[in-house]
Amino acid sequence: MTQDCVFCKIIDGEIPSHKVYETEKWVAFLDAEPVSKGHTLVIPKQHVENIHESEGMDFMWDALVKTADAVKEAFDAKGINIDQNNGEVAGQEVFHMHFHVTPRYDGSEIELDYDREDLENGEQIAQNIQEKMT
Amino acid sequence: MTQDCVFCKIIDGEIPSHKVYETEKWVAFLDAEPVSKGHTLVIPKQHVENIHESEGMDFMWDALVKTADAVKEAFDAKGINIDQNNGEVAGQEVFHMHFHVTPRYDGSEIELDYDREDLENGEQIAQNIQEKMT
Repeated sequence: MTQDCVFCKIIDGEIPSHKVYETEKWVAFLDAEPVSKGHTLVIPKQHVENIHESEGMDFMWDALVKTADAVKEAFDAKGINIDQNNGEVAGQEVFHMHFHVTPRYDGSEIELDYDREDLENGEQIAQNIQEKMT
Repeated sequence: MTQDCVFCKIIDGEIPSHKVYETEKWVAFLDAEPVSKGHTLVIPKQHVENIHESEGMDFMWDALVKTADAVKEAFDAKGINIDQNNGEVAGQEVFHMHFHVTPRYDGSEIELDYDREDLENGEQIAQNIQEKMT
């Protein structure tokens, strides 16, 4: 447990939450300010700040699939968004890695306003990323 | 390969793309309409429509971590969003499961307009989901 981490305190039971599921390695609990009914967070129990610190935590995959399935089924959702933010600039507010599993019912629950443009200089960009793949 | 799936055709090379990385099981390539410089998609080679069909694909975890690391490092991004949409109502446009790995530089690249409310009836909601956890 990391001191002053809200999610570590939730895992620990020091801060109350509505837990949905718990294993030795991860826990799912309801977001306290849901975007839609059933909005659930999935986190590893081990404190890591973000995705970059989570190499080898592949138990998180089945945690996500299992939670997405259950949330969809529980309320007959029409769709599910899975989102995970790293860094303040990306919207991260609690610095314990967490995935939002957000059911959507009619599409009005979340507005995603992407300002997309056609890809330019793709070859160079792909190469730059590829060079960092280790 | 599933006929008429754009991403299966990208995997196959039938449709050109800027591939960033490829293994036996997954591939990362640049989004053709990037939200920001380095916006990359990560997909399994096996055609599954969404997260609900992806049980056991835990190789996707390290695919995500590896790609998020590389995208961040390549362009010195300040943050990374990881997003995955299931169902038309959730914004899914290509029905081959894919994760967006989107670097953020100053926060202006993506507007997330969440309409959040305080959680009510948490106990009941958590129980409903828990009952579907199998």
